[in-house]
Amino acid sequence: MKEIYLDNSMASKPSKKAVSEMMPYLGERFGSPYSPHKLGEKAQKGVQEGFRSLYSSLKANEQDTIVFTSSGAEAVNQAILSAYLTHTLESGRNQFLAGANDEAAAIMSLNRLKDFSCNYKLIGPNKQGLITKEAVGNALTPRTALVSLSLANGLTGVINPISQISELLKERAILFHVDATHAIGKLDLDLNELGVHFLSFGGETIHAPFGAGALYIKEGLKAAPFIQGGVEQAHLRGGPFSVAMLLALGTCLREAEETKMILATETARLRNLLEDLIIEKLPTALPFYQEEERLPHVSAIAFPGVTAETLLWRLNEEGVYASIGGGSLQQLSLILSSAGVPKDLAQAALSFSLSRETTQEDIENAANIIVKCVNQLLPLSSQLKFKRGEEE
Amino acid sequence: MKEIYLDNSMASKPSKKAVSEMMPYLGERFGSPYSPHKLGEKAQKGVQEGFRSLYSSLKANEQDTIVFTSSGAEAVNQAILSAYLTHTLESGRNQFLAGANDEAAAIMSLNRLKDFSCNYKLIGPNKQGLITKEAVGNALTPRTALVSLSLANGLTGVINPISQISELLKERAILFHVDATHAIGKLDLDLNELGVHFLSFGGETIHAPFGAGALYIKEGLKAAPFIQGGVEQAHLRGGPFSVAMLLALGTCLREAEETKMILATETARLRNLLEDLIIEKLPTALPFYQEEERLPHVSAIAFPGVTAETLLWRLNEEGVYASIGGGSLQQLSLILSSAGVPKDLAQAALSFSLSRETTQEDIENAANIIVKCVNQLLPLSSQLKFKRGEEE
Repeated sequence: MKEIYLDNSMASKPSKKAVSEMMPYLGERFGSPYSPHKLGEKAQKGVQEGFRSLYSSLKANEQDTIVFTSSGAEAVNQAILSAYLTHTLESGRNQFLAGANDEAAAIMSLNRLKDFSCNYKLIGPNKQGLITKEAVGNALTPRTALVSLSLANGLTGVINPISQISELLKERAILFHVDATHAIGKLDLDLNELGVHFLSFGGETIHAPFGAGALYIKEGLKAAPFIQGGVEQAHLRGGPFSVAMLLALGTCLREAEETKMILATETARLRNLLEDLIIEKLPTALPFYQEEERLPHVSAIAFPGVTAETLLWRLNEEGVYASIGGGSLQQLSLILSSAGVPKDLAQAALSFSLSRETTQEDIENAANIIVKCVNQLLPLSSQLKFKRGEEE
Repeated sequence: MKEIYLDNSMASKPSKKAVSEMMPYLGERFGSPYSPHKLGEKAQKGVQEGFRSLYSSLKANEQDTIVFTSSGAEAVNQAILSAYLTHTLESGRNQFLAGANDEAAAIMSLNRLKDFSCNYKLIGPNKQGLITKEAVGNALTPRTALVSLSLANGLTGVINPISQISELLKERAILFHVDATHAIGKLDLDLNELGVHFLSFGGETIHAPFGAGALYIKEGLKAAPFIQGGVEQAHLRGGPFSVAMLLALGTCLREAEETKMILATETARLRNLLEDLIIEKLPTALPFYQEEERLPHVSAIAFPGVTAETLLWRLNEEGVYASIGGGSLQQLSLILSSAGVPKDLAQAALSFSLSRETTQEDIENAANIIVKCVNQLLPLSSQLKFKRGEEE
């Protein structure tokens, strides 16, 4: 049975090139880049190469800062704590905002700031699943220190209007953090146009192994370390880090930028094909946000009358790997519910995320298996009443 | 020119076995252990295997917690923030103590707590370079929340009397964190005998690649995550982590335990041989703490009349890699000064750290090269006046 992997928002298969570039740094070049000897010098070269890839792929200025982290979650934590330490403690502004459809790292980081006399509010998405400039505007107060949003949602594919929101925040001198994990290497991003102060991402969605992430900090912005330690990374992240992982992240981001066109054309076509094939044979199936600007590789589809967990399990048995969120991702049903999708539909939805390696054969087979499994489950659950909701 | 690597307290050459065990998880088994499908299940098996190695090598109870982190520094940060969040905020105890010879992660983490209405004090070592029970006792106040010490110093080899100090702290219900980075896999450690609440370590000293560390949290102790995120690691570390690195850390700790006898006998013999060979030809050379209980693989030696940086550089040119600290390690000269070593001697000292792979040939060659380089430098710097200090 060939496995069909459609869970790329959770993890994507590591790039062979990136992994092969890691190997010397897991072997002969094991030294610390901070050791003042030849072995340290070799490691330092790896560090420089890794950061060079990150800066050039992100088109960052030399004056911008990029901190290598062990995950996107760590980078999110650093952005939020940094805002507190360098902004709230000086200005007294202690209100924080995030999207209700944001991921756990941001929401839980804000929640922890309650221990430090801060408060936070979650901004709900509109019917189209996105956080509007108006919604952010309505939530702002004179005490708002930072707004934290995802650039795009890895389970629904919805893209937030970041540039519009950053204009609004600029007028009020409010910090803006964007989690770009699901958008990076997928969309054309321009840091100047985005106008954000912090941009974080994890590498696992762009074919880096787990264990690599980064935080971009805009030129001139004061920032604080999250992991306190020595002189590493210009005092912005203490303790040693994996040169191998940094190199892999840089290479993966470069590869993602180079192959972005495949995502925008072929992968998007395959994603649409998946939806078309499913609807053709299962007319009650309901893909979400087809009319919106979406990530090219993500589809969220409700299968009315079926419980998402059961379908996910059946698909797993048949070798098709999809997602309902969880782990560090938000739950898909919560995301959909927060955008007004009726609960029974939200709980019948799965997310499929493709990669540049997904083939037409994968998609045709996946569609057949999905249709087969849904049909097998429908009689079992047809006693459940359901509504198609207003989207139909 | 054969390179002779004597900087193992900074980084040690990754175990080939550990790296080969990582490979499947950097390739086919790339899934998230939190994904509910077969690929996730495979990753979950790696997670279980990794933690099993950590628990059994540390002889931890099932009720104890071990959190995998990206470095020892991250683990130190978690222990200290945890003490603040779960102890200080409830009890009001806001004084923290660390050793003056501790590493940057601990001292800088305590320094950051000043932003949260805490204060800290550094405890000076005695003439033997160690932090005594008496010194800790004198620094305690009714408001002391946590004491953080290194189990042993990676540059001087000095071992702190942890069990004695933990008895003292137990009486007063004070939390105790120990950074075991340089002691783990080197000394016989018994968690019950140590009696600590938190024990942290980074893997780079036990032949794991950079990017792996762990925090042990004693059974029954309340703890908080440092990286906030999802459900990962039972809510004690948010965000995805590298299964490959966890597995490598587990394997390296197991290998270190299995080969500990080599360190205690052969490596200690070679370390002593290095000191003997040097003194034989350079009678003014002054090894520190020879009479104390020391780590078996570490030697700190002063070369009066020579500047440490210059000697380090000359040795590097000759292929002998030693250390004066820095990076995430404390500076050797500061550590020695804090224990009363005169400044000119402290600034003339280098640290040599061996590994189980160091050979007699390495040591004999290193000794010859060290003697040669010191003699070359002495005429240049003989105009410097120096004292041998009280240790002679």
